[in-house]
Amino acid sequence: MKQNVYITGFSSTKFGEHYDKAASSLATKALLGSINDAEIKKESVQAAFFGSLVSGSNSQTSIGSTCIRECALQIPITRIEAGNASGAAAFQQAYSGILSGLYDCVAVVGVEKLSDYVIGGTIEKILGATIDYHWEFEMGATLASLYAILTKAHMKEFKTTLEQLAAVPVKNHKNGVKNPLAQFRREISLDRFLKAKRIADPIGRFDPATYCDGASSIILSSSKIIAENPDIKTKIPIVGLGHASDTLSLHHRDTLTSLQATKKAANQAFKMANINAKDINVAEVHDSYPIGEILAIEDIGFFPKGEGGKATEDGLTSPGSEISINPSGGLKARGDPFGATGIAQIVEIVKQMKGEAGERQTADFNYGLTQNVSGTGAMTYVTILAREEVGK
Amino acid sequence: MKQNVYITGFSSTKFGEHYDKAASSLATKALLGSINDAEIKKESVQAAFFGSLVSGSNSQTSIGSTCIRECALQIPITRIEAGNASGAAAFQQAYSGILSGLYDCVAVVGVEKLSDYVIGGTIEKILGATIDYHWEFEMGATLASLYAILTKAHMKEFKTTLEQLAAVPVKNHKNGVKNPLAQFRREISLDRFLKAKRIADPIGRFDPATYCDGASSIILSSSKIIAENPDIKTKIPIVGLGHASDTLSLHHRDTLTSLQATKKAANQAFKMANINAKDINVAEVHDSYPIGEILAIEDIGFFPKGEGGKATEDGLTSPGSEISINPSGGLKARGDPFGATGIAQIVEIVKQMKGEAGERQTADFNYGLTQNVSGTGAMTYVTILAREEVGK
Repeated sequence: MKQNVYITGFSSTKFGEHYDKAASSLATKALLGSINDAEIKKESVQAAFFGSLVSGSNSQTSIGSTCIRECALQIPITRIEAGNASGAAAFQQAYSGILSGLYDCVAVVGVEKLSDYVIGGTIEKILGATIDYHWEFEMGATLASLYAILTKAHMKEFKTTLEQLAAVPVKNHKNGVKNPLAQFRREISLDRFLKAKRIADPIGRFDPATYCDGASSIILSSSKIIAENPDIKTKIPIVGLGHASDTLSLHHRDTLTSLQATKKAANQAFKMANINAKDINVAEVHDSYPIGEILAIEDIGFFPKGEGGKATEDGLTSPGSEISINPSGGLKARGDPFGATGIAQIVEIVKQMKGEAGERQTADFNYGLTQNVSGTGAMTYVTILAREEVGK
Repeated sequence: MKQNVYITGFSSTKFGEHYDKAASSLATKALLGSINDAEIKKESVQAAFFGSLVSGSNSQTSIGSTCIRECALQIPITRIEAGNASGAAAFQQAYSGILSGLYDCVAVVGVEKLSDYVIGGTIEKILGATIDYHWEFEMGATLASLYAILTKAHMKEFKTTLEQLAAVPVKNHKNGVKNPLAQFRREISLDRFLKAKRIADPIGRFDPATYCDGASSIILSSSKIIAENPDIKTKIPIVGLGHASDTLSLHHRDTLTSLQATKKAANQAFKMANINAKDINVAEVHDSYPIGEILAIEDIGFFPKGEGGKATEDGLTSPGSEISINPSGGLKARGDPFGATGIAQIVEIVKQMKGEAGERQTADFNYGLTQNVSGTGAMTYVTILAREEVGK
């Protein structure tokens, strides 16, 4: 039997400010939630993979150890750190754990507790490590100013306008209203984005996604588990995975109007799934800045290079269109607890697959995609899920 | 064809103080060294797995990104953090990457640059995260004081003596003299250990392994690569792997005279390799404190529980005996750059397998083992290598 890997359970906490909860408590809530959702005994989970950026810079590195103790489990745990893409990175290692035959059932947990750092003022320093710390961060560049460079390059080369850029978060906030787990469930008008004070021109103060707290968890199972449990409630096959790297720094790259790691990771995932971008009808992409979503939808191949801004402005990525981008609200409205984000993106596609996305449900579709990015594109992960019928 | 995973190249920097080198430079040296040793083009390496503890608490998290750029490679990278066992943890994920069929040739790199932290005085805080930060470290406990508790419990229950404990580092320093890459290539007399000032009674100031700088790298290849390259210089099959967790804190455990995670990981690895402890003739174990080696050789099953101290004192773990423990000098004499340690342990076994261990060569043997521990036993990794003839 060819080994396939299936998502068989999922859970997310609400994203936002959880001042009263430790990172491990958020992780525990998500992990137990996903076990509960999978309708399995917790002892069935043979290993857990944790994705987080900050826990390594924090006092208690070992969120995974604390989490499994709180769950009264004693299973092997592995922590993956891939900057802002730590969640998707952990997902890929969990996938590899099943595919290799080492495990039949594993959990993956993405978690971050960022409120504490925002107060402490250390968040920018932590994020500085996801870019070139010595040649970018220490020289005064931040993620915002580097994304401003990416934005300007796109505006210059493709005449992308501020209105087109703002159309990204306008749409995502509209979507977020319909997501009960999103941090921000309110719309922000185009006018408000355009009139906002610039924090790193052309990026305005409402443009970036917020750092927040949250955890998401997914249960992955082997073909064997699926075969033995015909009545299993959730069985979403993972049909494509891609993972590519680029330089940390912008100044080492050949282009500023494309993220090469996204292109490579998407191509890899499409090749593995044996489909192309046209087969995808719903996607969660890394919109930590408006240009992030525009680069994503171009580099993945949903729209030709240079047309992402116009497509967004024209509503071609809104719910109901051929390709719905970030129906969950994206990082922008859902909130961005780094390690949790990559898992939350996949959870959203699973909910859409299962018809459990409530008011933000995408109509009939076969394939969904997620894209999770670290830094300004130093690492990108792409995941493709399929309906069971087509993904076999 | 059943998929096997082989070690086909390896390299280590000298361990010690490298004030003039960045962590990424050490990683680059080791990675290029292992590629060179494997006699492959660097483009053959499809992915790299990095193990490090501190890089996440440091300014530049992304040592992997910097390292592959320095190597002029652009391959997917994954960073694993598992405290002091980050090296072995990365090795396991690299192994899984080949076993799953996702890759045919990958590199694993363990690296740490600790000198900077020793000066900054933050090393204890970083290590605090490998134990229970809130209920141990913040209450005043350090790794040394917790290992002192483990030592006292063993002394009380099994009448283990200070002389027996000191026999561990005495032997390891003797071994380290013969290892050109070791940090400390000099003997320390039993008397000097016994007369040393106590830093956390009964642990003396010469007992702990030192935090230092260094990097080690290994190339892993699939059965396909081995089949296609009959003349390959190094082909050491990995026949057993184990990975188990325990609570971070000592106060949550049932026993203080055994590391349950070591027992579980060793059993798992032996089961996978279909051998037992008696089949092993050379092992590199986690002797960050003398009691660490004694617990290891008992919990792995080389000696009955309670007899590890006496066995060491009697020379039963010295070179030439049935089971030679830490011929490289161990963490104690080789030095302990956390993330690099787990890989360096495996590199030593590979050198022994290939008859390239010089003056410290173990005579004919079929199986070698490594054991890498995080914190006071919160995570343990066990790896078993075999000679090609027996490991097929």
